[in-house]
Amino acid sequence: MKKDKSEKVNNTENFSPEVFKKIQQARKLQPRTEELISSILSGDVGALSRAITLIESNNPNHFANAKALINVCLSHTKQSIRIGITGVPGVGKSTFIEAFGKHLTRQGKKVAVLTIDPSSSISHGSILGDKTRMEELAKDSNAYVRPSASGETLGGVARKTRETITLCEAAGFDIIIIETVGVGQSEIAVHSMVDFFLLLQIAGAGDELQGIKRGIMEMADAVVINKADGDNVAKAIVAKTELSRALHLFPPKKSEWTPTVSTCSAKTQEGITEIEQIIVNYIETTKNNGYFDRKRAEQNEYWLLETINNQLKEDFFNHPEIRDLLEKTKKAVQNNESSPFAAAQLLLETYFKNKP
Amino acid sequence: MKKDKSEKVNNTENFSPEVFKKIQQARKLQPRTEELISSILSGDVGALSRAITLIESNNPNHFANAKALINVCLSHTKQSIRIGITGVPGVGKSTFIEAFGKHLTRQGKKVAVLTIDPSSSISHGSILGDKTRMEELAKDSNAYVRPSASGETLGGVARKTRETITLCEAAGFDIIIIETVGVGQSEIAVHSMVDFFLLLQIAGAGDELQGIKRGIMEMADAVVINKADGDNVAKAIVAKTELSRALHLFPPKKSEWTPTVSTCSAKTQEGITEIEQIIVNYIETTKNNGYFDRKRAEQNEYWLLETINNQLKEDFFNHPEIRDLLEKTKKAVQNNESSPFAAAQLLLETYFKNKP
Repeated sequence: MKKDKSEKVNNTENFSPEVFKKIQQARKLQPRTEELISSILSGDVGALSRAITLIESNNPNHFANAKALINVCLSHTKQSIRIGITGVPGVGKSTFIEAFGKHLTRQGKKVAVLTIDPSSSISHGSILGDKTRMEELAKDSNAYVRPSASGETLGGVARKTRETITLCEAAGFDIIIIETVGVGQSEIAVHSMVDFFLLLQIAGAGDELQGIKRGIMEMADAVVINKADGDNVAKAIVAKTELSRALHLFPPKKSEWTPTVSTCSAKTQEGITEIEQIIVNYIETTKNNGYFDRKRAEQNEYWLLETINNQLKEDFFNHPEIRDLLEKTKKAVQNNESSPFAAAQLLLETYFKNKP
Repeated sequence: MKKDKSEKVNNTENFSPEVFKKIQQARKLQPRTEELISSILSGDVGALSRAITLIESNNPNHFANAKALINVCLSHTKQSIRIGITGVPGVGKSTFIEAFGKHLTRQGKKVAVLTIDPSSSISHGSILGDKTRMEELAKDSNAYVRPSASGETLGGVARKTRETITLCEAAGFDIIIIETVGVGQSEIAVHSMVDFFLLLQIAGAGDELQGIKRGIMEMADAVVINKADGDNVAKAIVAKTELSRALHLFPPKKSEWTPTVSTCSAKTQEGITEIEQIIVNYIETTKNNGYFDRKRAEQNEYWLLETINNQLKEDFFNHPEIRDLLEKTKKAVQNNESSPFAAAQLLLETYFKNKP
């Protein structure tokens, strides 16, 4: 927060805080940003890439333009379908997405693929960040593949991915696929920004190996057993039965949708059409019962509150007086010299006393 | 926060913020508080009750005394064993705790039973708050039974329960049992304040009925199948095998402890001695490998950070300017008129600009 404020002083192209007045904002935009917006709206993928780079920028001089860009694009988005896809490494996420994406672009649909991978800052993108993995799709003129921003916390990646969805929608993409690796917290972030959540599995690898957390299973609107080809077909059918039984144990979903289990082969294309149909059915069901719009509204509110909570914490823990005091206080609390509640009170008093 | 500060002005018996200097604090205490402390330390249950009432008080005039009381008691606590017990309504938590508690007091151990039940504010304590449920134990001179503070959020109940543990330990209790109903978030709060976490089940009720969330299973150090008497014995043995198999699928625990599954009957007392032995084994294992102390230190730190996060949010969302603006902003965000991130930024700027 404080960083933002001090930047403001030096930043003459700033906007009034009334984010709702988009017209005003648009008028104040730099000519280059205005140009960028009209290029995005015309579906120019190069402009889209530049815009994403702008919102990914950590340079505070770019923040105001990025914010305005997003708010203008928000009013121009066509309603896309947002699909989250997760699964542990080895289930064939990228080959699946390539096969599924090509299937959609062949019908003239525009498909964007984004990835959320906070681990890429450590692994340097080796798991998901590698754009060349989906070569066919990346070359497709109806597709756009963009890896995760790297060097970021999950919160940072999530914010940027959500804003990238808005830009892609403004650029006219019909289907936005968000890919994440099914470990850690990233699938929760993805779940909170998509309409449909697909869990990719393979047969016979065992629950443990696939790192299935019950939480992920519960989030899934569809479980797809990939690599159901050749010798694997029989195993895939057994796994399908088992997973159907397991899913049956969960309480009914608020969406009134019963999660499906199906098999597919990204290699032979078998089952890909059926998955498209499942998603079409889901969208129809949830649009009819009002869940689709309700969920989107809830997701927006979730991100509003999530952003506030994260920023409050960030401001607190980066406060110089707190930084100095925190380590000492933690030690006292760990050693039972002070109650955690009294210690928290002391830190909070220090913080609020020293706010500018 | 602000409330606290303004109270301070009117409160002449205030303490220096240096919570670590307990001796100074003790000197400044009101005679009545000093008396209270020495009565607690001598094991006076009446004084203990009055002290708990003081820390449960929502009257800001009591805050400073309550804080000092806790910090003095912290330095006088003998190390007790803290046991969390959870299970859905109907598994027989109170009869189990009564049987188990009596088994311990018979050996001369002092047992305190506290409950965490944020729902009691709605149900008026019908689930857990009913002290008369453990009549035998409540009459026992070696036992102390105290229901949850009512009319509170989970955060409030959790803080008060944690401080009540400190008071009970200062009063010389050897075993502190914290009971909670296994629904919602309260079992997470309990898990973060106990050494040993016990999940109570009954045979044949089905996973769904018992509301077993994988998360609770993962937290358990022991699963006990209660009501294993009469016709239920066979079913309980089957359930034991199934649960052992299910627990086997979880990754090993940081404590290096393998969770046990056992059967018991609160009615016939069968299995109660074995459960005591399991807990003794657990404490021995985790004290030897250092986990016991490490976990307590981590729990203290957890509550420090948790308290800070909650108070930051509370201060933000109770800020008059934010309260006015929030509903309007939420609506704009839900209707896609503003990006959640831009809206959060606006609220945060308003908040920080208006801090006193």
